[in-house]
Amino acid sequence: MTGPTDASQADGTRRRASEVALYGLTPPVEQAILSAVDAGRPNQIRGLIRPLHPADVADLLSRLDTEQRRVVIEAIKARFDPEILPYLDESVREDVFDVMGARDVAAALAELDSDDVVDFVTDLDEDERKLLLEAVPPAERVVLEQGLTFPDSSAGRLMQREVVAVPTHWTVGQTIDFMRTDQELPESFQEIYVVSAGNRLDGVVPLARLLRSKRPVRVADIMSAEMRPVPPTTDQEEVAQMFRRYGLVSTPVVDESGQLLGRITVDDVVDVIDEEAEEDLLKLGGVSESDISSSLLETARSRFVWLLVNLVTAFIAASVIAMFADTIAQVVALAVLAPIVASMGGNAGTQSLTVAVRALAMREIGRTNALRVIVKEVALGIINGAIFGLAVGLVAWAWFGKPMIGVVIGLALILNLMAAGLAGMTIPLILERLGVDPAVASGVFLTTVTDVVGFFTFLGLATWLIL
Amino acid sequence: MTGPTDASQADGTRRRASEVALYGLTPPVEQAILSAVDAGRPNQIRGLIRPLHPADVADLLSRLDTEQRRVVIEAIKARFDPEILPYLDESVREDVFDVMGARDVAAALAELDSDDVVDFVTDLDEDERKLLLEAVPPAERVVLEQGLTFPDSSAGRLMQREVVAVPTHWTVGQTIDFMRTDQELPESFQEIYVVSAGNRLDGVVPLARLLRSKRPVRVADIMSAEMRPVPPTTDQEEVAQMFRRYGLVSTPVVDESGQLLGRITVDDVVDVIDEEAEEDLLKLGGVSESDISSSLLETARSRFVWLLVNLVTAFIAASVIAMFADTIAQVVALAVLAPIVASMGGNAGTQSLTVAVRALAMREIGRTNALRVIVKEVALGIINGAIFGLAVGLVAWAWFGKPMIGVVIGLALILNLMAAGLAGMTIPLILERLGVDPAVASGVFLTTVTDVVGFFTFLGLATWLIL
Repeated sequence: MTGPTDASQADGTRRRASEVALYGLTPPVEQAILSAVDAGRPNQIRGLIRPLHPADVADLLSRLDTEQRRVVIEAIKARFDPEILPYLDESVREDVFDVMGARDVAAALAELDSDDVVDFVTDLDEDERKLLLEAVPPAERVVLEQGLTFPDSSAGRLMQREVVAVPTHWTVGQTIDFMRTDQELPESFQEIYVVSAGNRLDGVVPLARLLRSKRPVRVADIMSAEMRPVPPTTDQEEVAQMFRRYGLVSTPVVDESGQLLGRITVDDVVDVIDEEAEEDLLKLGGVSESDISSSLLETARSRFVWLLVNLVTAFIAASVIAMFADTIAQVVALAVLAPIVASMGGNAGTQSLTVAVRALAMREIGRTNALRVIVKEVALGIINGAIFGLAVGLVAWAWFGKPMIGVVIGLALILNLMAAGLAGMTIPLILERLGVDPAVASGVFLTTVTDVVGFFTFLGLATWLIL
Repeated sequence: MTGPTDASQADGTRRRASEVALYGLTPPVEQAILSAVDAGRPNQIRGLIRPLHPADVADLLSRLDTEQRRVVIEAIKARFDPEILPYLDESVREDVFDVMGARDVAAALAELDSDDVVDFVTDLDEDERKLLLEAVPPAERVVLEQGLTFPDSSAGRLMQREVVAVPTHWTVGQTIDFMRTDQELPESFQEIYVVSAGNRLDGVVPLARLLRSKRPVRVADIMSAEMRPVPPTTDQEEVAQMFRRYGLVSTPVVDESGQLLGRITVDDVVDVIDEEAEEDLLKLGGVSESDISSSLLETARSRFVWLLVNLVTAFIAASVIAMFADTIAQVVALAVLAPIVASMGGNAGTQSLTVAVRALAMREIGRTNALRVIVKEVALGIINGAIFGLAVGLVAWAWFGKPMIGVVIGLALILNLMAAGLAGMTIPLILERLGVDPAVASGVFLTTVTDVVGFFTFLGLATWLIL
């Protein structure tokens, strides 16, 4: 058999498929690069990085600190692989931009697909963006600026303009001959779009179907109109939901008049799915963004806001306790037990909240079942509230020797777990209805409810029943 | 132009690309189906469901309650579209199985790709699985049972055996002629695998490259050996990480001898990514699974465990408070303020924890940067602790008129936020190192730390400095 052609085989060794590691950036390779960085050996760095996939180089850069990163970029910048750019994290992009300069970055971007260029430019700050746009050749600048006119996180930003489109009247043979001669086609594609006058999208022919059809067949006869074209203003979350739902590999983007603008491919959608999942997770955890590679002060600032909001909630809860200061002065056991009621409510509420936020993100809650899931959460609160109320009541009685304390904490737990279930499910639903992201604000409202209801019912019942 | 061929056009109307909605299951359609279900009109149900994509039918079924679901399945079971099966949630699959019976399900499964069949059977309980395997024709049963021998959540379970593979010595022309005549090829594929004797994988030819090459060219000359074949035992999370990292559309699965077993496609990987993201989110929220469509008692049971664990934590915190009962009896303000210290610590710790869990899932933390991120989290705790300590100290002083209470709560906040940063980052790292999923258990350990440190430092410092 003839020799394979890819770079990893350049050293002349022959690796069998089953022996290839899943990732190119193995710990030994990473360690070797780190040593070369620390020793300041640019040639060695270059030699170690050359066989790596661009995604692995990007990953390496994100794990280094700013200083090490500069050393690596300096070492590879003369023969910088443009394909590294799309894989870089936002904070790393700035470093690359700083070290390489606008002109070299612009030259590298010229090699990329339009969606990757737009994405890269989006994440730069105002000054850098201006510098870069000036360094880009005029023809590309127009395309780039057009791309930037679409709203952030829209299908227009995700799409690449490089598509293969042929007229309706062409045959399979004409299409194949065109593909064999035209050198300007995109690197990889899975379908041919069929367009009529004015670049209007009429249908799509998957490559597998094209290959399996005889040359004289017209593309119009084998094309499928079962496409799911999206307008460029569609939110990327909608696009991701559509890919996920129908198992798509790519989808065309068309404007209001049905004109083909470009296509969105599944690799970009996988990034969107990751982003959206990350956003939901982080927002529920009270963090605005993944800040592993951000600076200390940036991170401190971004986390500050959420802690401040939590502080307000905590003071509201504290003032509820303060209302019952006299009761606590007489029965100190209440101060010991009150946090248990609040904590159990917070946890039960977070369970409901998490399920609600995920189900909303996956479109699993709609008008059909909203009321049913709310009723279920309240019922769950009653069931688990009764079980834990009984158990904690008995323990509290045994601990402090006063049966009435047991009764009070038991009742408070049932009420707070009911409130937790109700609030945990309805708060995200209401926020979603109001157009607010349910993941970001739900947590504060929820803990406010469970803390206030928890402390108020427990200390209130105690004041009423014990004193 | 000639007429399109897909089902949605069967009613004779012609929809332009730009007018097609993103989802087939629009609210009006859903409402109409619900009315038909409630009125018990099977013909109307069938008519409304026929134009829907199988994914939309599956989605509809998951939103109905068990009773409505049975009505719909009864209505469509005579002409059941097998493609609905792979899209069904686990809990819905059982209902479908019950209503349709093993024999009809087995017949439907015969129409599906091998990965979908294995996936469907995996989610059934033992009895149902046995019934189904008996109803499946012997030839398929062998393939199915082979698929089930691979570990749960492995590449072997994800892969489909239907691949297009041609011998190394073939030309492009031979390959295209083969594809034009062979009717047994999979529905859709994006690449041709090139194999030598014994079905050993030598390379891959993307369809776009095949189409662009002249007929006499040998496939061995255009194939790429830059593949990322995975062994069938690879964990699906690793597979997803590889697809995400390298932007893959499909990847071959090979055994130890390099023999081609099948391929994994990106649509299945998108499902895995969704599953893994959901797992992390839900586990952090203290829920074992998305239980929107589970029964009340199942849900109550699954949430009970986490609440029980939290209760133990809450009692540990309560016993720390109880150690200082005498102090509280003398200064009731402490009972009012103590939950603030614990709450701020819990929130700050959850921030660190969330970032750590996500970064671990995305492989963003490794040996290179582990120590650096831990130090950063502790530094964050000091910065935000100092700011909030000062602010809360001043408020507490103003509220209770005792400067010393302000000093005590300020110091306690700094210490607890440091502990929160340290615990929030190191707990998931340690769990990961021990081979435990960091998402599932981190939360309990964290709140135990922040509650105990919070109450102990605040009440301890108060006892020492105020009394």
